Amino acid sequence: MKKTYKILDTIHSPEDLRRLDKNLLPQLCDEIRKFIIDVISENPGHLGSSLGSVELAVALHYVFNTPDDKLIWDVGHQAYPHKILTGRKDNFHTNRMYKGLSGFPKMSESPYDAFGVGHSSTSISAALGMAVASALKGERERCHIAVIGDGSMTGGMAFEALNHAGAANANVLVILNDNGIAIDKSVGALSNYLTKITASRRYNQVKNKIWHIVSGRKSRQFIANIANSLKSMVLKQSNLFESLGFRYFGPINGNDLEKLTKVLKNLKEVEGPKLLHIITVKGKGLNQAEKEPTLYHAPGEFNSQTGELIRRDNGVKTPPRYQDVFGKTLVELAEKNPKIVGITPAMPTGCSLNLMMECMPDRAFDVGIAEQHAVTFAAGLAAQGMVPFCNIYSSFSQRAYDQVIHDVALQKLQVVFCFDRAGLVGEDGATHHGSFDLACFRPIPNLTIVAPMNEVELRNMMYTAQLPQAGAWIIRYPRGKGVLLDWEKPFHEIERGKGIQVRQGVDLAIITIGSIGNHAIQACEILDTLGVQAAHYNMRFLKPLDETLLHEVFKMHKKIITIEDGVITGGLGSSVLEFMNQYSYQSKVVRLGIPDYFVEHGSVAELQKECGFDVDSIVKIAMEGF
Amino acid sequence: MKKTYKILDTIHSPEDLRRLDKNLLPQLCDEIRKFIIDVISENPGHLGSSLGSVELAVALHYVFNTPDDKLIWDVGHQAYPHKILTGRKDNFHTNRMYKGLSGFPKMSESPYDAFGVGHSSTSISAALGMAVASALKGERERCHIAVIGDGSMTGGMAFEALNHAGAANANVLVILNDNGIAIDKSVGALSNYLTKITASRRYNQVKNKIWHIVSGRKSRQFIANIANSLKSMVLKQSNLFESLGFRYFGPINGNDLEKLTKVLKNLKEVEGPKLLHIITVKGKGLNQAEKEPTLYHAPGEFNSQTGELIRRDNGVKTPPRYQDVFGKTLVELAEKNPKIVGITPAMPTGCSLNLMMECMPDRAFDVGIAEQHAVTFAAGLAAQGMVPFCNIYSSFSQRAYDQVIHDVALQKLQVVFCFDRAGLVGEDGATHHGSFDLACFRPIPNLTIVAPMNEVELRNMMYTAQLPQAGAWIIRYPRGKGVLLDWEKPFHEIERGKGIQVRQGVDLAIITIGSIGNHAIQACEILDTLGVQAAHYNMRFLKPLDETLLHEVFKMHKKIITIEDGVITGGLGSSVLEFMNQYSYQSKVVRLGIPDYFVEHGSVAELQKECGFDVDSIVKIAMEGF
Repeated sequence: MKKTYKILDTIHSPEDLRRLDKNLLPQLCDEIRKFIIDVISENPGHLGSSLGSVELAVALHYVFNTPDDKLIWDVGHQAYPHKILTGRKDNFHTNRMYKGLSGFPKMSESPYDAFGVGHSSTSISAALGMAVASALKGERERCHIAVIGDGSMTGGMAFEALNHAGAANANVLVILNDNGIAIDKSVGALSNYLTKITASRRYNQVKNKIWHIVSGRKSRQFIANIANSLKSMVLKQSNLFESLGFRYFGPINGNDLEKLTKVLKNLKEVEGPKLLHIITVKGKGLNQAEKEPTLYHAPGEFNSQTGELIRRDNGVKTPPRYQDVFGKTLVELAEKNPKIVGITPAMPTGCSLNLMMECMPDRAFDVGIAEQHAVTFAAGLAAQGMVPFCNIYSSFSQRAYDQVIHDVALQKLQVVFCFDRAGLVGEDGATHHGSFDLACFRPIPNLTIVAPMNEVELRNMMYTAQLPQAGAWIIRYPRGKGVLLDWEKPFHEIERGKGIQVRQGVDLAIITIGSIGNHAIQACEILDTLGVQAAHYNMRFLKPLDETLLHEVFKMHKKIITIEDGVITGGLGSSVLEFMNQYSYQSKVVRLGIPDYFVEHGSVAELQKECGFDVDSIVKIAMEGF
Repeated sequence: MKKTYKILDTIHSPEDLRRLDKNLLPQLCDEIRKFIIDVISENPGHLGSSLGSVELAVALHYVFNTPDDKLIWDVGHQAYPHKILTGRKDNFHTNRMYKGLSGFPKMSESPYDAFGVGHSSTSISAALGMAVASALKGERERCHIAVIGDGSMTGGMAFEALNHAGAANANVLVILNDNGIAIDKSVGALSNYLTKITASRRYNQVKNKIWHIVSGRKSRQFIANIANSLKSMVLKQSNLFESLGFRYFGPINGNDLEKLTKVLKNLKEVEGPKLLHIITVKGKGLNQAEKEPTLYHAPGEFNSQTGELIRRDNGVKTPPRYQDVFGKTLVELAEKNPKIVGITPAMPTGCSLNLMMECMPDRAFDVGIAEQHAVTFAAGLAAQGMVPFCNIYSSFSQRAYDQVIHDVALQKLQVVFCFDRAGLVGEDGATHHGSFDLACFRPIPNLTIVAPMNEVELRNMMYTAQLPQAGAWIIRYPRGKGVLLDWEKPFHEIERGKGIQVRQGVDLAIITIGSIGNHAIQACEILDTLGVQAAHYNMRFLKPLDETLLHEVFKMHKKIITIEDGVITGGLGSSVLEFMNQYSYQSKVVRLGIPDYFVEHGSVAELQKECGFDVDSIVKIAMEGF
C-alpha cells in the first residue's frame, strides 16, 4: 500500500515549497525524513548523510530561487532530500536501480542538479566557475552555493578552490556541513580545528553576536555595515577561512530549520565569497543511525520502524568480500614483516584497513580524503625502506594518477597499491565504476599490474608484492564477494609476469584477467555442453605480459576472446593485439570489456550484461562471434 | 679557462661545509651565486629561484646532518645551490644535458637528494612519509625538511599533507620559501594572506618576540617553555598554519644567513610539525633577475657580467612557438565569441595566456598551481554556457586526470583543453615529458582528442573546438617552435574525426599524429631519393579515429608505420592495431613512439633519436623494419 505524507505529497517542485506557510516546514522535514527511511529501508542507499541534511535542503530551496540559483551538493551522498523536493519523489523508489534515478545529483536528470557529483571536493570549483560565468553574463543577482562536508573539505582541490575564490571576489556561498564524519570519522588537523572552534567560548561569543546581528534585520545597507564590523571581529579571531579571503559565519545548528532559514536569507544579501559553518547530526532522526554513523552511512536493508538491520544470509557460509581478504591478509603479512604499513584516504571501513588500524594503530594511516597525498606519503615511506600498502578505490585512484607516475613509478619505489572497487561497481554508477585503471596505468613504466581471479590469488599477490625488491605493484580487485569458502591458504610467491592455463580446449581460447575469469570458467562449462572446447588462460599480470604463455595461445588458436572488467580501449585486449602484431600472428581476437561510453548504475549483473561480458554473452560470442 | 672560487672549490660535500668557519659562510654564498651565474649564463637553466635560495641551502646543510637528515626541495627549481654543495659542482656544467646532471633533485643521482621532484607540492607529503618511517624505525633524532615555495603551497596536495601532518605530530619542518612568485607572480588568497602577515605590524611584533626568544638560548627545556608561550601568542593571531596544527615561526629574511642559521639551529630542538616562513628575493644578486623575476626564471643564455640576455636569432624570421600560436589565436577567437574564457594553472607566461590576460583581464584566469581546480572550475563555467579554454602542460594534466573524466567528459561539457609541452620536452627530463596524454585520455568516452601537425592546424582545431555543441576537446601540441612562417590564415572548420593524406606512395604507409608528422614528411623525401614511395597520412584525430581513411590505408598497404610523440603503449599505434583486428586486415604495423621506460633529459633531438623516431630512424625502419 502506498504510504501518504500529508504535506510532502503536495510538493512537486521547489516552487510548491516556497508557497508553503513557513510554520509547516518543520512537519515537512519530519515527513521527508520518514519518507527517506521508508524507501531506503527497502531499497538500500546512502541513508545517514541525507537524514542529516533535511533541514538544509528545505531551507536552501525555500530561501533561494532554484534552479536559477545554482546549488551543488559535494559528493552527493546527502542529496536525497534535495532530490525528493525537486520533482523526483515519485521515482525515488527507483533510486540506484538500473534505468532508475541516480544515487547522485546529475545534470541530465534534473535542472535542479546544477552539477553532477560523486567524487569528493569538486563543489567549490564548480560553484566558482558558475559564479564567474554569471558575472560575465551580467546575471549579478544569481547565487551559487556549494554544500560541502567537513570530510570533503580535506580534499586538496577544495583548498585550491578556496584559494582562488577567496581572491576572486565572486558571489559564492560555501556551506560547510560539519558532522565530524565522512563515511568514517573525519581525521586530520582541519577536523581538529573545526571541533575546536565549535567548542570554543570565544567563538561562541562571536557566533552569538553574528547571530543577533544577522538574524535581526534585513536591509542591504545594514548588512553592509555589519559586514565590516564582522570583518573586524573575525580578524581578531584565528580563523582559517578568513585567512583565505572568505567571510566566515557560524557555527550554527544546521538541524535548526528556523535559524538556518533566517541566516540564509540574510547571507543572500552579503556579496563576495562567504562560508557558513553549520553543525548537523549524521543520521538525524533515526536513533541507531545517529549512534553508529559509519554503519548507517549506507546500511543496506533495515526495519523502518526499529532501525534494525536486516541480514539475509540465513547463516549460510558465503565467500568473503575481497576487501576483507585484503584487510585480514594485510594484518597477517604485517605481523611478519615489520616494514609494512597501511594507508587509506578516508576509507578504513570501506577497504577494511580498519582491521589493521585496530591492532596496529601506529602502522595504519587514514590520511583523510586525500588520494594525492596518500600516494606521495607512501612514496616517502618507501624511500626510507618501508613497504606501504596504499589502498584506494579504483575510480578514486584517478585522483592520484600523477603521483603514481611521478613519485612512485619514476623512482622505482616499492609501494603496493591495492585498488578496491575495480571494474563495474553496480549501483553507485558512472562516477564510481573502476573502469580505467588497467588502461591508464598500463603505459606507465616500472609498474607491475595484476588482478587476482580469486581470494587465494589476491593473498598471494599481496604476499609477493611485499617481498624484497618487488618494486611498485598495482593489485586491482572488485567490489563484493569472492568465490572461495576456503581461502586462508599458506602464502605462495607468484612468479612475476606469469599467467596460468585454467582449462584446456582446442576450439578457441579465452584470455582473462582478474575475477571476471570466473565468468569464463562458467562459460567454458556451458560451451562444453554445446560441444565447443574452449581453453581458458588467466593472465594474472597485465604488466609485464606473459609472452611465453601468449606464444602458446597464438600457436594453438585462431579464435581468441579477451575479457576484462575494464574499458576495452587500451587494456588487456589491446595488449594482446600489440603482442599479436609484434610477433606477426594472425588470429582473430574479440575483445570484451566496458565499451566506450559511460556506463550508468544498476546491479553488477545487469551492467555486465549490458556491456556484453556476462556469462551468456561470452558463450554467445564464443559460438557466433568469429 | 676554468674559473676558481676560493672557498667553494674546497667544498666537496656538506661535511666540508660543516667544518667551515661560520665567518666564511657569507663569502661562500657569494661564490655560489657567482658560480651559478657563470655556469647558467652559458648553459641555460633555472636561474632566479636558485639565486634566491643560496643562503637557505648553505644554512640547511650547515645546520642539519645531511644526508641522514632528509631534505626535500619542492619542484626543485631552487635546488642548484644544494646540488653544488653536495658533490656535483664539478659536473654542474652538464646540468640538463644529455647524460649529464638532471635539472631537478633525483634520488638516483645523489644520496643528498632525499626525494625526486619536478611537479609541484609533493614535498610535505614525502617528508611526512619519511618522518613516519623514522619514527617507526626508532630514529627519533632525524629531521625531515620540506622546502616549499609560496606558489607550490597553493597546490591542493600541499594542503592535504598539512592537514595530515598537523594532526600526526610527526617531526617535520616545513620551510615556506616566500618570494611572492612561482614562475609568474603568485596569485590567490594564500598569496594575499602571506603578503598581509609579512607586512602586518602585529605579526612583526610577534615575529620579533619569537626572534629574540628563539635566537637567544638553546636548551631544550627552554625551547619547550617558549614553545608554549609562543603557542599562546600565536593563538591570538589569525594564523592559517597554526589552525592546521603547525607551529608557525617567522617571517624572517631568508637571505640573512646569520639569522637563518640561528633559527634553524633552534628549530632542530622543537618537536612536532613546524613551519618556518622565510622571505627571499628571487634572482637575488643579479640586478635584472631581481627586477624581472619571470623573465629570469629560466632566461636562456645571458651575459654573466651584465645580466643582459643573449638572443641568437640574428634577425632571421623563424616560425612562432606553438604556445604563442595558442595565445594569439585565443585572443582572436575570444574577440569574436564572447563565451570564450581562458584558464591557466600558474603558467600564464609559459603557455602565453598572458596575451589574453592583458587585453581581456575579466575573461582570463590564472588559478594558481591548481590543475584539479582549473579543470572543474572550467567545467562549472561550461555548465553555464561559457566555452573555457583550459591550458595545462601535458605532464601536469596528469594531476587533473580524474577531473577531466568526472567533471568534464562524463557531463559532456564543452571545455577545450590545450595541452602544451606534449611529447618529449627535452632538458626538463623525465618528470616533464608529456608522454602519457594520448594513451591515458584515449580510453575516456566523450572526448575528442587531436594533435596539430603545424600552426595552421592548431588554429583551425581551436576554431573548431569552440563552435557550438563541439563537446570536450583535448588539443595537444609540443614545446617549442612550429614549422610555418606564414601561419595567421583565416579559420577553417575541421570535420570531426577526419584525417588527411599528406603524400601518396605505394611501398608503405606512414601514419602520424601531431607535429611529429613533419619528421615523416622529411623521411618520405629521403625515402623517395632511395627509391621507396611512402604514403603519409596525418590522422589529426586520435579520437574519434578516421576509420574511412584507415580502410583506405589498409586496403592499399601491407607495411604500415605509426609515429606518435607519446608512449607507444596504448596510443595511436595501438588504436590502429585495434582497427586492424576489428576489420580483419592483416598488415604488418611497426609502432614508433616513446618506449616503455622513463626517458631522461637532453635535447629533444637527442631524445627522439634515443627513442627511435627521429628522421633517420624512421627512414631506417621504413627500409629494413619489415
